Amino acid sequence: MARKRHTYLMKVGTHKYNDQLLLCYSPVTDRCMIKVAINGYGTIGKRVADAVAAQKDMKVIGVSKTRPSAEAFVAKSRNFPLYIADISKKSPFEALKLPISGSVEEMIKQADVVVDATPGGVGEKNKPLYEKMGVKALFQGGEEHELTGFSFCSDCNYREAIDRQFVRVVSCNTTGLCRVIKSMDTAYGVKRVRAVMVRRGSDPGEVKRGPIDAVVLDPITIPSHHGPDVQTVLPHIPIVTMAMVVPTTFMHMHAVQMELARPATREGVLEVFRRHPRIGLIGKGTGIGSTAELKEYVMDLGRPRSDLWENGIFEGSVTVIDNDLYLFQAIHQEADVVVENVDAIRAVSGVVKEPDVSIRMTNEALGFKPLR
Amino acid sequence: MARKRHTYLMKVGTHKYNDQLLLCYSPVTDRCMIKVAINGYGTIGKRVADAVAAQKDMKVIGVSKTRPSAEAFVAKSRNFPLYIADISKKSPFEALKLPISGSVEEMIKQADVVVDATPGGVGEKNKPLYEKMGVKALFQGGEEHELTGFSFCSDCNYREAIDRQFVRVVSCNTTGLCRVIKSMDTAYGVKRVRAVMVRRGSDPGEVKRGPIDAVVLDPITIPSHHGPDVQTVLPHIPIVTMAMVVPTTFMHMHAVQMELARPATREGVLEVFRRHPRIGLIGKGTGIGSTAELKEYVMDLGRPRSDLWENGIFEGSVTVIDNDLYLFQAIHQEADVVVENVDAIRAVSGVVKEPDVSIRMTNEALGFKPLR
Amino acid sequence: MARKRHTYLMKVGTHKYNDQLLLCYSPVTDRCMIKVAINGYGTIGKRVADAVAAQKDMKVIGVSKTRPSAEAFVAKSRNFPLYIADISKKSPFEALKLPISGSVEEMIKQADVVVDATPGGVGEKNKPLYEKMGVKALFQGGEEHELTGFSFCSDCNYREAIDRQFVRVVSCNTTGLCRVIKSMDTAYGVKRVRAVMVRRGSDPGEVKRGPIDAVVLDPITIPSHHGPDVQTVLPHIPIVTMAMVVPTTFMHMHAVQMELARPATREGVLEVFRRHPRIGLIGKGTGIGSTAELKEYVMDLGRPRSDLWENGIFEGSVTVIDNDLYLFQAIHQEADVVVENVDAIRAVSGVVKEPDVSIRMTNEALGFKPLR
Amino acid sequence: MARKRHTYLMKVGTHKYNDQLLLCYSPVTDRCMIKVAINGYGTIGKRVADAVAAQKDMKVIGVSKTRPSAEAFVAKSRNFPLYIADISKKSPFEALKLPISGSVEEMIKQADVVVDATPGGVGEKNKPLYEKMGVKALFQGGEEHELTGFSFCSDCNYREAIDRQFVRVVSCNTTGLCRVIKSMDTAYGVKRVRAVMVRRGSDPGEVKRGPIDAVVLDPITIPSHHGPDVQTVLPHIPIVTMAMVVPTTFMHMHAVQMELARPATREGVLEVFRRHPRIGLIGKGTGIGSTAELKEYVMDLGRPRSDLWENGIFEGSVTVIDNDLYLFQAIHQEADVVVENVDAIRAVSGVVKEPDVSIRMTNEALGFKPLR
Repeated sequence: MARKRHTYLMKVGTHKYNDQLLLCYSPVTDRCMIKVAINGYGTIGKRVADAVAAQKDMKVIGVSKTRPSAEAFVAKSRNFPLYIADISKKSPFEALKLPISGSVEEMIKQADVVVDATPGGVGEKNKPLYEKMGVKALFQGGEEHELTGFSFCSDCNYREAIDRQFVRVVSCNTTGLCRVIKSMDTAYGVKRVRAVMVRRGSDPGEVKRGPIDAVVLDPITIPSHHGPDVQTVLPHIPIVTMAMVVPTTFMHMHAVQMELARPATREGVLEVFRRHPRIGLIGKGTGIGSTAELKEYVMDLGRPRSDLWENGIFEGSVTVIDNDLYLFQAIHQEADVVVENVDAIRAVSGVVKEPDVSIRMTNEALGFKPLR
Repeated sequence: MARKRHTYLMKVGTHKYNDQLLLCYSPVTDRCMIKVAINGYGTIGKRVADAVAAQKDMKVIGVSKTRPSAEAFVAKSRNFPLYIADISKKSPFEALKLPISGSVEEMIKQADVVVDATPGGVGEKNKPLYEKMGVKALFQGGEEHELTGFSFCSDCNYREAIDRQFVRVVSCNTTGLCRVIKSMDTAYGVKRVRAVMVRRGSDPGEVKRGPIDAVVLDPITIPSHHGPDVQTVLPHIPIVTMAMVVPTTFMHMHAVQMELARPATREGVLEVFRRHPRIGLIGKGTGIGSTAELKEYVMDLGRPRSDLWENGIFEGSVTVIDNDLYLFQAIHQEADVVVENVDAIRAVSGVVKEPDVSIRMTNEALGFKPLR
Repeated sequence: MARKRHTYLMKVGTHKYNDQLLLCYSPVTDRCMIKVAINGYGTIGKRVADAVAAQKDMKVIGVSKTRPSAEAFVAKSRNFPLYIADISKKSPFEALKLPISGSVEEMIKQADVVVDATPGGVGEKNKPLYEKMGVKALFQGGEEHELTGFSFCSDCNYREAIDRQFVRVVSCNTTGLCRVIKSMDTAYGVKRVRAVMVRRGSDPGEVKRGPIDAVVLDPITIPSHHGPDVQTVLPHIPIVTMAMVVPTTFMHMHAVQMELARPATREGVLEVFRRHPRIGLIGKGTGIGSTAELKEYVMDLGRPRSDLWENGIFEGSVTVIDNDLYLFQAIHQEADVVVENVDAIRAVSGVVKEPDVSIRMTNEALGFKPLR
Repeated sequence: MARKRHTYLMKVGTHKYNDQLLLCYSPVTDRCMIKVAINGYGTIGKRVADAVAAQKDMKVIGVSKTRPSAEAFVAKSRNFPLYIADISKKSPFEALKLPISGSVEEMIKQADVVVDATPGGVGEKNKPLYEKMGVKALFQGGEEHELTGFSFCSDCNYREAIDRQFVRVVSCNTTGLCRVIKSMDTAYGVKRVRAVMVRRGSDPGEVKRGPIDAVVLDPITIPSHHGPDVQTVLPHIPIVTMAMVVPTTFMHMHAVQMELARPATREGVLEVFRRHPRIGLIGKGTGIGSTAELKEYVMDLGRPRSDLWENGIFEGSVTVIDNDLYLFQAIHQEADVVVENVDAIRAVSGVVKEPDVSIRMTNEALGFKPLR
């Protein structure tokens, strides 16, 4: 059960945002904004923090680290209050002139929603704390579906997340698959999906993980966990996934095939993608045909951290053969779930009831533009 | 038209090799062995040369290089006579104490069969020379099917290659696909194949080609050329292929899916693979789940150049779901076509009429053993 | 000879910028700003364009491309007028809704200074055009020193560049070496430098260049060209360099050793580096010990394109043993010359006579901050 | 104290090997051969096992594994008796038809010398067992010098190892440095060494370790541990080393600089290298200028596992400037210590008193040939 103080959030809304009742907030006094704590200021956490800070209806009230690191200096440069799990480990931070605002518990006490962006499996250990403190919390895809009993993707099941205490935002790969499958299922019906995920070996800033010169089957067995994970969001879709890891650092590449239920044309499919708020079509005219070129382009466009929040679908790859749709999509492992977390914050807070509205608010605040 | 002197090859056979009439030869005098010239002593050429030298019914009469290089020293260490295209460029070789036996034309004059292992597209330029000199020649998969009008895979169409003057041995990826598709088509019937090929960026000894940190769609469009290329060998198989390139140097990885016509079980499929002379099942007990571990294992087993001539199918990946077969196979880009070239030499020479016999001869001479 | 119209630039200055006479300009009418054309809008050109656009005394009047590409869309997103070398090749651009403002000659006609950021060796071919049109031009380090007879590094020889028509901005590696050597030479005297440069194989957005899994000596011989190249800027410094290439995409790593003429301490050396406007000390407290972690940090700090314009010297590596200084420095191959180009524009324009002033103006406009 | 049974080894020798008294042995009955156990059949252990098996005066009496793996199948294919530390974990081996000969203790009981090739730090834990069982043992460079108080390099201090119970064979990098430094110290006197080691990130068969796209300083501080480690073998040599790790799998690359005490010429230095039994000069004529090309060449020459047991010094890089010697050398991390272990087995057994003799025996048994 979430704490009582959440309930007032749902009563105060009287302003309108695009014809929707919204949370009352004052950008000047910051009263009534959704107070968000980021537990785990790492690859995902630091991005969610910036994305939350960019929203008009949310505020970052604190972020947490376990040890001093480059990211702690980043938090300081952003003026995010820094909290630590074990307050007795304060001195190494202070020795580096990194002021500590308090313990993680103290941070949570002030929050309406905690985004748990700790490493996979740690979220499970944190959940009892959130329960004890009666705070709403989002977990990431590194946790099991069973932890929350509800797995989230903005496009697919936003409404079901409303007012829940605990929500799991599915992983980058699952998010990318859900978006494209849902869009096709709505337009044509999807009878079966087969997808091969060629995953990056490590994030760009990691230096310990490999492989250096290998394709690693992960897992060797078929299907990989991604198919069943998609079904936690879209239970009715038959899907078989195969997954491997390669020596790259930026973006997963999906080779997707879908058997469609109703006749489709390449142009029709492209039109669905063009209208989708979380799908970016990579135009043929750009000459982009790789993750590296795509990253360079997104960087050149001025996206923060070169982040691609959308599915990057290669326009030139979209092919329909005998009602089978084939395509390649690039999924930025560090970024696509960031916008989902922002939407999920709104959903669990219950202040925005319509997915379209939240998605639009999130995208606008981040300055989404078509890739071309 | 091949030269007259080939015709005697088919007449002299009187010895028996496993119940088949074979070419008469004398290992002492080397009379009547098939005389093979390797035009292009590079990645493929040097392997074919060693494999030919290991056969009892063949002999390497010369290899060619265009420039001095490490490989020229290797040819010398093997005592392969070295020929060069442009005899006026002899002196840089001689300055390095690399003796030149003559021009490529002189080499071809002595050959029964030329294995053209020059870079893609060069074979086409060489063909008129082979025609002029009336010699049989094998081309590699880097050439177009149209160059010979016949594309070869030992398992699939050996008999059709008998006595042809020109044969194209299909590329490593196409060979790997043909082997596994043909085996399943014979056993169960194949209704449709979908395969994603995750290709190595460069061979291990190359240092100029990338990518370094990217997944490159090659091509962006779907299908890749591999599907149609399989159909040059197996025209009746509907197949769609998607291809990308990653920063690895050893082996392509195929994620293969086949709709089977008749009911199949995982154990049944594995049994077909176990009996196949060019498929190597990588046992689960080895713990091998990557190209790098597979290479290490093949190296440890003492294979020359760590070469995997077979399809490396991961036992643990072989899965049957609703009559759909899924599997991962590793294809060693430098090696799988080597044994195909050896068989094709026999086929065009016409001395061995049965594929099974040639495949067994080739395998035995190279010391094939099950991977586990 | 530079055109007449440059001369007025030097007369109009009446305003003061930090106690220096400066060019008069109006941000509203853009009269009197230095008009800069970027010939070659690629890796370096696009960065120089953005850096120029950020300066108060300069304006980008156009950029050039030879073919439509992702970068052409980027130029459009920046509202930089796009010019092409061969105006007859206009239609592929227009087909992609990329408007062309004219030919490269027309672009140059409007420019005070051309920054030639074409690939290595192309600058040499362009020089006659610049001569014909009487325009000042900067070339990059991919060109030979002899092309201009003058090689530039802001710290070392800014004053000598004043009013020159042609200046070569030295390469990223040479720039990085010159900065650190000059700083130590000024403080302690440098008797001898030995440096090993471990270079990135390709830029992040390139996918064709390798190596994938190799250390490549480039060149095999010693010294590499970098030592002599440093001497084009600092002729009196004895220096021997060794260079290799590795499979990374971001930043070169230099292992530098200098014999100092006068007694030095680690703390003294660090103090010199801390005061240097183009040296960034990477603090031990950040835990950063690799190019990847450094890039992540620079990205997190919000630098455009994660650009590190400074030498990234690892504080923890700075060591003095028997008057020998040892250190590691990371050099961002895409970025460190960008700020040098901006300074060189001012120098050849003659509007800012003091290096310190130009360096400060450049840095402030880009928002330089200490790394920690 | 080593067991008594070692003492007879030193009495039985009556045969001569190249004018040296040697151990009596019978290849038929294997009486009196040095009985070697390999504790840890991994990257180094499996190579030492094969090298020992190739020697006329040694025999592999067993190898050990902790878990079933591909290498266990390799041991079986070599007919090496397989032992396991914890005999209660026998059944997973037997389930895979990998017969277990007994416990590690039982293996050691039969051995004259144990080569401990376990991962770094495990050797230290094993030493008490070797002490208890009174067996001679070699440790690898992953252990501390203090573990044995004696660090070994055949060229440098073979005689001091004679009859010792415990010897540490220094690491691949230290071995490579010791060889080249000692050779120059003998010929010219070495006043100071500065070396930069660019290390491979993982071995070719590893898939978990990175980095993927980074140069990692390891350590950030200067000097790295390699300099002091060289001094455990050559205490009088002043040496400063700097070390980093890059995303490659095959061979470290050393950029070495030495101040020589006496006048030297390039040709003189090359002559010293040509005569050295453990230095391989990579001729300019081969065109080899990278680790990848070197590996390909060594593979093509038919070396087992493409192993380069020698220092691979690039002939073209050897340069003398003002009595400073500069060169690049490639050090195969998996191989160079293998031959040192074989020599160390002879030294501790006391049966061969002269390093030259042991080195020659080792090299001849492995079929060393000049690289060109």
